[in-house]
Amino acid sequence: MPFIMNAWYAAAWPNEIAADRVFARTICNESMVFWRDSTGAAVALEDRCTHRQMPLAKGWLEDGTIRCSYHGLRFAGDGSCVEIPGQNNIPAGVRVRRYPVAERHGWVWVWPGDPARADAALIPDIQTRNESPGWTSVGSTTHVAANYLLLSDNLLDLTHETFLHVGSLGNHAVVEHPMETRTEGDRVVVTRWMRNHIPAPFWKANIRNATGYEGLCDRWQIIEFRPPAHLVLDVGVAPAGDPDPMNSASGAQGCNLNTITPETEHTSWFFWAFSRRFQLDDTELSARFLDRVTGIIEEDRVAIEAVQNVIDRDGPERLISLRTDAGGIAARRIIERLIRAEAAEAAAPDRTTTRRPTSRRAAR
Amino acid sequence: MPFIMNAWYAAAWPNEIAADRVFARTICNESMVFWRDSTGAAVALEDRCTHRQMPLAKGWLEDGTIRCSYHGLRFAGDGSCVEIPGQNNIPAGVRVRRYPVAERHGWVWVWPGDPARADAALIPDIQTRNESPGWTSVGSTTHVAANYLLLSDNLLDLTHETFLHVGSLGNHAVVEHPMETRTEGDRVVVTRWMRNHIPAPFWKANIRNATGYEGLCDRWQIIEFRPPAHLVLDVGVAPAGDPDPMNSASGAQGCNLNTITPETEHTSWFFWAFSRRFQLDDTELSARFLDRVTGIIEEDRVAIEAVQNVIDRDGPERLISLRTDAGGIAARRIIERLIRAEAAEAAAPDRTTTRRPTSRRAAR
Amino acid sequence: MPFIMNAWYAAAWPNEIAADRVFARTICNESMVFWRDSTGAAVALEDRCTHRQMPLAKGWLEDGTIRCSYHGLRFAGDGSCVEIPGQNNIPAGVRVRRYPVAERHGWVWVWPGDPARADAALIPDIQTRNESPGWTSVGSTTHVAANYLLLSDNLLDLTHETFLHVGSLGNHAVVEHPMETRTEGDRVVVTRWMRNHIPAPFWKANIRNATGYEGLCDRWQIIEFRPPAHLVLDVGVAPAGDPDPMNSASGAQGCNLNTITPETEHTSWFFWAFSRRFQLDDTELSARFLDRVTGIIEEDRVAIEAVQNVIDRDGPERLISLRTDAGGIAARRIIERLIRAEAAEAAAPDRTTTRRPTSRRAAR
Repeated sequence: MPFIMNAWYAAAWPNEIAADRVFARTICNESMVFWRDSTGAAVALEDRCTHRQMPLAKGWLEDGTIRCSYHGLRFAGDGSCVEIPGQNNIPAGVRVRRYPVAERHGWVWVWPGDPARADAALIPDIQTRNESPGWTSVGSTTHVAANYLLLSDNLLDLTHETFLHVGSLGNHAVVEHPMETRTEGDRVVVTRWMRNHIPAPFWKANIRNATGYEGLCDRWQIIEFRPPAHLVLDVGVAPAGDPDPMNSASGAQGCNLNTITPETEHTSWFFWAFSRRFQLDDTELSARFLDRVTGIIEEDRVAIEAVQNVIDRDGPERLISLRTDAGGIAARRIIERLIRAEAAEAAAPDRTTTRRPTSRRAAR
Repeated sequence: MPFIMNAWYAAAWPNEIAADRVFARTICNESMVFWRDSTGAAVALEDRCTHRQMPLAKGWLEDGTIRCSYHGLRFAGDGSCVEIPGQNNIPAGVRVRRYPVAERHGWVWVWPGDPARADAALIPDIQTRNESPGWTSVGSTTHVAANYLLLSDNLLDLTHETFLHVGSLGNHAVVEHPMETRTEGDRVVVTRWMRNHIPAPFWKANIRNATGYEGLCDRWQIIEFRPPAHLVLDVGVAPAGDPDPMNSASGAQGCNLNTITPETEHTSWFFWAFSRRFQLDDTELSARFLDRVTGIIEEDRVAIEAVQNVIDRDGPERLISLRTDAGGIAARRIIERLIRAEAAEAAAPDRTTTRRPTSRRAAR
Repeated sequence: MPFIMNAWYAAAWPNEIAADRVFARTICNESMVFWRDSTGAAVALEDRCTHRQMPLAKGWLEDGTIRCSYHGLRFAGDGSCVEIPGQNNIPAGVRVRRYPVAERHGWVWVWPGDPARADAALIPDIQTRNESPGWTSVGSTTHVAANYLLLSDNLLDLTHETFLHVGSLGNHAVVEHPMETRTEGDRVVVTRWMRNHIPAPFWKANIRNATGYEGLCDRWQIIEFRPPAHLVLDVGVAPAGDPDPMNSASGAQGCNLNTITPETEHTSWFFWAFSRRFQLDDTELSARFLDRVTGIIEEDRVAIEAVQNVIDRDGPERLISLRTDAGGIAARRIIERLIRAEAAEAAAPDRTTTRRPTSRRAAR
């Protein structure tokens, strides 16, 4: 399955892109090189000199431009060539493909498809909560050797917490409470309320400011999916019976922000953050959250890579879906529809865009 | 070439399969997971949860059943699903393919083909001598990165002992004595008698109870092949001229039991044992035999993997066969005939079996 | 693209081929085994016993012949079988393909194509200068994971010295002076004269016998390409304004001898030597040259392997050539013409040669 190319994908954390060193990353099978130009803006070009195919990422930056390390051609952030050593004229075709880049909501985003369609207003506001007062956040990037949809499936069916994350997020309360799945246009929302149960270890440690709450709790998971793979998880607990659990001062409210960027058909960059609305100044708690969530995502990574190995071996067929898969199935339908729409548009004779949006290496 | 699927293959040693941990092994391109159910019987399922393709071998055992570690589905040893967490009904299709398993003659056997045809009486009695009073045995498993037929070829032409195993099994007596090859139905028997020669180092050390025999000896190698790749080697020496060398009290009588199980087209599990009928209680001798035979098989492994590399590079063509290859050629003909028979049967419209016996991944 | 098969390729340095050990090397996709026969002459056979495909390089030498380590077949340097253990007659087909070998100009050469056409007079005299009195030389072999033509391109456009070898061979003088490219039959000659400039570090250290020359210099690079990939670089410097710079006693005259042998489509053996005509007896200088040139070639290797990676990923298309690529383009045209000529000849019905010259594994 090819990728949705006309979309924003998280490419990096802002501090990964700099004015004094190049940063290479493959996104949707496109090899890209990132840096900051002389205005400080992040830019991205195809990681390949048009002259003799040298990766530009092996080069160096000069005055906001990138110099190829092989024969010294120099390119600006818009892909134009600004110098060919040993030659005064610059032929029109000497130009490197550029990718639109924007920086917003705590991540650097890139648009692998048609630049004419890139509109920063389309960047999902998934991390606004993180930038709002009253919230604090930790996060990281995890490389996963699996297709991005397996990660999206994973986040849309948290039933797996009971088994894969037993000892942290999971206990039987999760599997025993049903989910509600709702599709609204390109959004999927999966909701699970778990009332009146013994809290799982991860949450127990955080109710009532980590004093070691011994009672029962109410817990919620509200998962919102937007394509290609932005998943915001509104999660939290409160002492059982609180009339307003999502705002309980004795409870714990968190937000798990995830955006998954395909590297190739078989590998993904998983950007994630965990924001919370309690004990904002507790840096020890922040460090502990970073450590715990990293460990949980590591459990997911190992499981999902094992599934990818089976798919590589056996193919994707012969699956049986259960009730709990409703969210993942709905999300995959949206993605398939958007990919078909892109393909239809690319094939239309009178389309106004000039670039084929689908990856030229999608079949690899 | 696909594999014979309707056949018993050695899968493991009995102590490798347990009631408290799972054991994964690929056989004839089928990924399998083994354990012991609550009756202590070894069972095998396809190593793949039918829900979301998680390898079951990543799961754990509960009351003789296996629990998938991802979403917690639980399966019995017959492949039926006994629990779907979060769902009361179990849809009819939620079932994992099972493989018939039997334990006999010192090995655990599995039948990768049509379960309806699996008959434990078809398990080759290759290790009966091992279980008989008057014999003792050492053995192990060697993983070889080569097609199983290369291993079978190797055992059917022991001429190679003179060169590959010079210093242990080999000396010029082997190559100087001709072999007789006889095919009887699905059996091939290769016989070589070597009279009146200086014993090779391995045997010299064992004649007359390891007293360092200095005279000449008579030696025999009687190799019996049965498909897919069970090879029993009746081997031994006696002081030259003994009227009943195979029963000489001054000689040494051994039996090299081999069964080779394809893992993939390019890799094999080589199960072997060396049984002897002398110095039964000498545990030091047993340890020395295990060590020596392991070393000899290691020489075979290195050579055969080198041959496989050449085949992968050049293809199998352009071979010239010599007189000594008669046994290997006869064995390959039997295998080809049985594979053709299976394919013909699978293609027949009125066959009564319900499963296609050939591996779905045979073409890999 | 297949290789030119009817051509001499450097295979080894003379001291790599011996009478008491085998030497394996793949050239133009042909796996070869080399040794010295009882006359001391280097010989080469296909590295594959015709009996059961064992690599002959796993065997050992006996009286100038090679013994297969598996079943002991023994072959002479002309490919004929001289012994089959256990069998008196030697069937006519038991023979291993031989490759013509010659030793000249300081290297051992092999002809992977039709033996009937191998003529030692066709060996390029690229190292004659090295063997002449008045010259001394250092050299080595570098394995490069890239197609040999990328290495040839690299040597035909030394503009890259300014960027890739900044700090040793390169400074702006190189890129600022134009090249002249001349094609004469199967030869390409690229000439660059750089007058009146500050010498690059590598050369500065060598003018006027390494006394640390502070003035300006004149420098030349005269590159001669002959197919498949023999490249002689006549290089040197002299104090600026010397009327006969190429023979100036105050200057430094060198010769960089290169011959590139394809291993596969994606890997190459790069044989190189650096000869000089000054300070002949200075062994410290020789050691320093070996070290410096090794370092420079290592920079080339890293760059060229990066380019090969991009080609493997994206294909070779979408390149734009500049004025400085004239030499490389001319060389590639010669090679393409010679390959087409070989293919046409192989397809001709009345050709007198008996062997198909192109590699049977060229398509891999």
